[in-house]
Amino acid sequence: MTAKSFVFMTTEHLTGLRGKVNTRGRLMQIINVCRFRNGVKSRVIKPLACFFTSSRTMAKSKFEYVRNFEVDDTCLRNCYIVVRLDGRNFHKFSEQHKFTKPNDNRALGLMTRSARSVMEELEDIIIAYGQSDEFSFVFKRTSNWFKRRASKLMTHVASQFSSSYVFYWKEFFGEQPLLYPPGFDGRVVLYPSNRNLKDYLSWRQADCHINNLYNTVFWTLVQKGELTTVQAEERLKGTLAADKNEILFSEFDLNYNNEAAIHRKGTTLIWEKHDETVTKQIIGVNDERKDIRVTRSKKIVQTYHCDIIGEEFWQQHSNILEDDGC
Amino acid sequence: MTAKSFVFMTTEHLTGLRGKVNTRGRLMQIINVCRFRNGVKSRVIKPLACFFTSSRTMAKSKFEYVRNFEVDDTCLRNCYIVVRLDGRNFHKFSEQHKFTKPNDNRALGLMTRSARSVMEELEDIIIAYGQSDEFSFVFKRTSNWFKRRASKLMTHVASQFSSSYVFYWKEFFGEQPLLYPPGFDGRVVLYPSNRNLKDYLSWRQADCHINNLYNTVFWTLVQKGELTTVQAEERLKGTLAADKNEILFSEFDLNYNNEAAIHRKGTTLIWEKHDETVTKQIIGVNDERKDIRVTRSKKIVQTYHCDIIGEEFWQQHSNILEDDGC
Amino acid sequence: MTAKSFVFMTTEHLTGLRGKVNTRGRLMQIINVCRFRNGVKSRVIKPLACFFTSSRTMAKSKFEYVRNFEVDDTCLRNCYIVVRLDGRNFHKFSEQHKFTKPNDNRALGLMTRSARSVMEELEDIIIAYGQSDEFSFVFKRTSNWFKRRASKLMTHVASQFSSSYVFYWKEFFGEQPLLYPPGFDGRVVLYPSNRNLKDYLSWRQADCHINNLYNTVFWTLVQKGELTTVQAEERLKGTLAADKNEILFSEFDLNYNNEAAIHRKGTTLIWEKHDETVTKQIIGVNDERKDIRVTRSKKIVQTYHCDIIGEEFWQQHSNILEDDGC
Amino acid sequence: MTAKSFVFMTTEHLTGLRGKVNTRGRLMQIINVCRFRNGVKSRVIKPLACFFTSSRTMAKSKFEYVRNFEVDDTCLRNCYIVVRLDGRNFHKFSEQHKFTKPNDNRALGLMTRSARSVMEELEDIIIAYGQSDEFSFVFKRTSNWFKRRASKLMTHVASQFSSSYVFYWKEFFGEQPLLYPPGFDGRVVLYPSNRNLKDYLSWRQADCHINNLYNTVFWTLVQKGELTTVQAEERLKGTLAADKNEILFSEFDLNYNNEAAIHRKGTTLIWEKHDETVTKQIIGVNDERKDIRVTRSKKIVQTYHCDIIGEEFWQQHSNILEDDGC
Repeated sequence: MTAKSFVFMTTEHLTGLRGKVNTRGRLMQIINVCRFRNGVKSRVIKPLACFFTSSRTMAKSKFEYVRNFEVDDTCLRNCYIVVRLDGRNFHKFSEQHKFTKPNDNRALGLMTRSARSVMEELEDIIIAYGQSDEFSFVFKRTSNWFKRRASKLMTHVASQFSSSYVFYWKEFFGEQPLLYPPGFDGRVVLYPSNRNLKDYLSWRQADCHINNLYNTVFWTLVQKGELTTVQAEERLKGTLAADKNEILFSEFDLNYNNEAAIHRKGTTLIWEKHDETVTKQIIGVNDERKDIRVTRSKKIVQTYHCDIIGEEFWQQHSNILEDDGC
Repeated sequence: MTAKSFVFMTTEHLTGLRGKVNTRGRLMQIINVCRFRNGVKSRVIKPLACFFTSSRTMAKSKFEYVRNFEVDDTCLRNCYIVVRLDGRNFHKFSEQHKFTKPNDNRALGLMTRSARSVMEELEDIIIAYGQSDEFSFVFKRTSNWFKRRASKLMTHVASQFSSSYVFYWKEFFGEQPLLYPPGFDGRVVLYPSNRNLKDYLSWRQADCHINNLYNTVFWTLVQKGELTTVQAEERLKGTLAADKNEILFSEFDLNYNNEAAIHRKGTTLIWEKHDETVTKQIIGVNDERKDIRVTRSKKIVQTYHCDIIGEEFWQQHSNILEDDGC
Repeated sequence: MTAKSFVFMTTEHLTGLRGKVNTRGRLMQIINVCRFRNGVKSRVIKPLACFFTSSRTMAKSKFEYVRNFEVDDTCLRNCYIVVRLDGRNFHKFSEQHKFTKPNDNRALGLMTRSARSVMEELEDIIIAYGQSDEFSFVFKRTSNWFKRRASKLMTHVASQFSSSYVFYWKEFFGEQPLLYPPGFDGRVVLYPSNRNLKDYLSWRQADCHINNLYNTVFWTLVQKGELTTVQAEERLKGTLAADKNEILFSEFDLNYNNEAAIHRKGTTLIWEKHDETVTKQIIGVNDERKDIRVTRSKKIVQTYHCDIIGEEFWQQHSNILEDDGC
Repeated sequence: MTAKSFVFMTTEHLTGLRGKVNTRGRLMQIINVCRFRNGVKSRVIKPLACFFTSSRTMAKSKFEYVRNFEVDDTCLRNCYIVVRLDGRNFHKFSEQHKFTKPNDNRALGLMTRSARSVMEELEDIIIAYGQSDEFSFVFKRTSNWFKRRASKLMTHVASQFSSSYVFYWKEFFGEQPLLYPPGFDGRVVLYPSNRNLKDYLSWRQADCHINNLYNTVFWTLVQKGELTTVQAEERLKGTLAADKNEILFSEFDLNYNNEAAIHRKGTTLIWEKHDETVTKQIIGVNDERKDIRVTRSKKIVQTYHCDIIGEEFWQQHSNILEDDGC
């Protein structure tokens, strides 16, 4: 920080003065006052030959030193950048908006719609994965979006997602009103290898599975088994995955595998080439009209509700990840 | 990263199996395969005594190592935390939504409404300052909101502001539709002293002044002076503040100081104690009804459009900043 | 990272070729090979018109992208920067070099000498405090040494201290040989206010007191009380400061307050102005020789073993810290 | 920061009091004074039932909040950690110690000896590369040394290297005295892939080549060509690698490729398994003495002066790097 940093802005009330007041040529000094314990030391910075003409601009440059307090938060190169958003107090939000249990398809649809809006705004996102009230966005390794500045990346994702959530609410909830603007918080995590990134996504999908299996049994016990929520919780204490599958099957004749994939697997968004064929009429040399079929290739966001833990998904979509050798 | 990190999840397709298929007691091994250039080395991690019962939960714990890639971004203690938001592509946004020039009071009102929504959600914000399409939020030095994690603070502010912007749009723009969900990006900056913080806010208000003076003259030249935008730009090239004041005064009989304070000074939001007096009816010992006046003190967000560069504002609101000596 | 990053350096073996071998004008291509899962994609970067002349320089620029992986670690402005060093395995080191117990004045002297060497090399250090095998160095708030880069500051301090420790060993240990090169590790901590900084130094001095009181009693019990180290440890388990003072006083007639200040208070180094008066002979107008006394003011590193927790020290040396208001 | 942070330590002068002075049971209060602009607010923290017994320990815990100002600087997992050291003012240092030009084998030997000392202290270093007054140390991807804390890693390397430099000076410079303790500064850089790491090392070796070719020609022109240093500099301005090779060859009959590899290629240190065979005498069942040969495998630091830009070195030492797929 230079000495200029500490200049007291004493010139504020002059700024509105008009030209007729002749202050031109007036010599002013701006004093740098920096108290030390044993007295006051003051230092003249520089005479301002013509104060009037440049007052505020100068004032601004005087304060501009505060810019240097910003720190660089560039993400390490050659790493995948993951931004994960989580709903703030969505337990309460889902109750106030009467989400159906264990899953509300309107709410999941709105999450996915908002995520798509994020992807379409930020092209360097190669894959996004969501479940419940969370969504993860993966920027490609070599992305230079926002110069890889972590703060810009995560705030833009959080902002675009949130404004989209409110914007598209009606598409999914129709006339049911949104009671207040919801909040999401985010974070950035870097993954240096394909293995690490896939393990991250597997971690989130495994989390989806565990929670959904629990919630499915819990709400079946309550809704069909007529247990209270306290009883259902008690019943499930200490049970393993197999036990939960067994309860569904033997008591309610439900095969968990037949539950909707969107609930069991969450939602994966990726970019895919899509051929669009349109018919165009052209006019030939001798004014002859002719219909021709034109096919254009376009990248669109595609939605999947499949397993992404195994290798199959990655083999079928081999262009998502770059080779580690780069 | 431990060896467990690299375990391939080969057990995926078993997870859905139901209890009748007897896989209980089956001994499985999960193999850690980590290729080295000179061959493949594999290592048995541990036998899984009873795979079926714990498959996915185990799988999850296998992936959980990815959590360790998250880095701590706690803000330095005893510093003010400033989160500043900036509209993304708001030049285009303002044109598409036909904002009036040089200032659109509906748009400014919506910004302030959204900022208030942020302040009301995050109580540790002691002051916020906004102008044009930006807003700065200052968390108190001793705030422990989100454990001072920079990423959480800025994404939550960006998210709450953005969802509020869409949510309250109608209040300010009535039937004029919002065409698409807008985006804001944010950043975090720390300031160790009161001087530094006040200089930051002064910097933003000086920026407001400079831009608004320019825009006021520019659009006056275009709207009243009937110059084209190119001519107006040319006319203002190289002019100083005094020159611009002079143009307004001598050519258009306008005194810049009489322009609306909200445009010249921007918007400052602070918390203020507010006494609320309500009448309550109480029932006395012998069933006598009595009206009494009850006064409660409540903190509310107050809006100012005043100078915050000089010391006056800070003297009048001396409880905003804590003493540096702490 | 640009495409150039991945260029394979296949031209290595040409670099030593001499001019007679006519390779001028030879057109070469450097291929960017980046494997994707679904095949190998290669891309020609650019033809190298005249490879021979610039081979290695070019090669270097090809690799230079790795520079961008360095991250900025600039310390927040207007904060005190503290670098603390700690001896690595000094318990073992002190035994191998037969340090006297509980304190070895040669070892403490060498620590202080090394710290002085650091201060004299890095002028922006305003105060240093050491005890046992640790030393803390405080850079002034406004220091711009090494552009405030944390890594540079701490490694330079660690390096200068360590080389000085070996260099000055003989001055303190005479003919007793240093058995191997010792290691110190370091860290950087920032403090935004004078209060915080003083509390940091108080923390270290309180630590000195606690450890030295313990060690003094422990070794008195062993050396004069003829307890084994195990017995002494047992005896002191659970005792408070008062109990320890009491043991020294009633059993060994020692008043802890009379112990050497260097052991009780550690060592504080600060810069002080020092008047140096020298006699100079000058030759006058008529060749007359005259002795004159010239006094020059010089800043030197001064050593203290006093209390720095109370305000007295700071009042007497009021120029060490700048006012918080800056 | 909690309220405790601001407690003024007014109890300092009691700490030395001995047991006879009866202060037991005395009730004290420590006051938290935190000035606000509009007055002084003070708050009683807590009564100290028995101040005397725990004074300093308590005092210490009072200051311990300063620990929370330390920030976490853990290096991202699964990345190579490179620590590079550079000599401080080694131009001057080399002149004062009369290093031979263009290369001083004693100085290079001392650098390598110091680097070996670092490697032997920090086993997770898999490769080190040095040239001139710099040395780079590479920690393996999965290293957990110092919990991957960047500050600890780089200061320990800088410290160990510097103390070794002074410690081993005599081994290389004999009776020529070291005039003052030298300094090295360091930095940490992370590389996510094998390609990136090899490119980093290639960058340093290319730098070695460029500088050594220049210096070789420059000092040949001065020492054999009898040019002044200014003339030599002038002569080399704008020349390319080929031109420099040509000067050496046609004017001085020197083939740069025949220059010592240590100067052209720098120094690479890696760990290698080494079989050590020793003869041991054993005593058999009937007291018969027998000599047996025992072979033990031991890892030792091996020195190379070869090309590390091409793939050959990495193929021959395929165990240095782990596969990227992890």
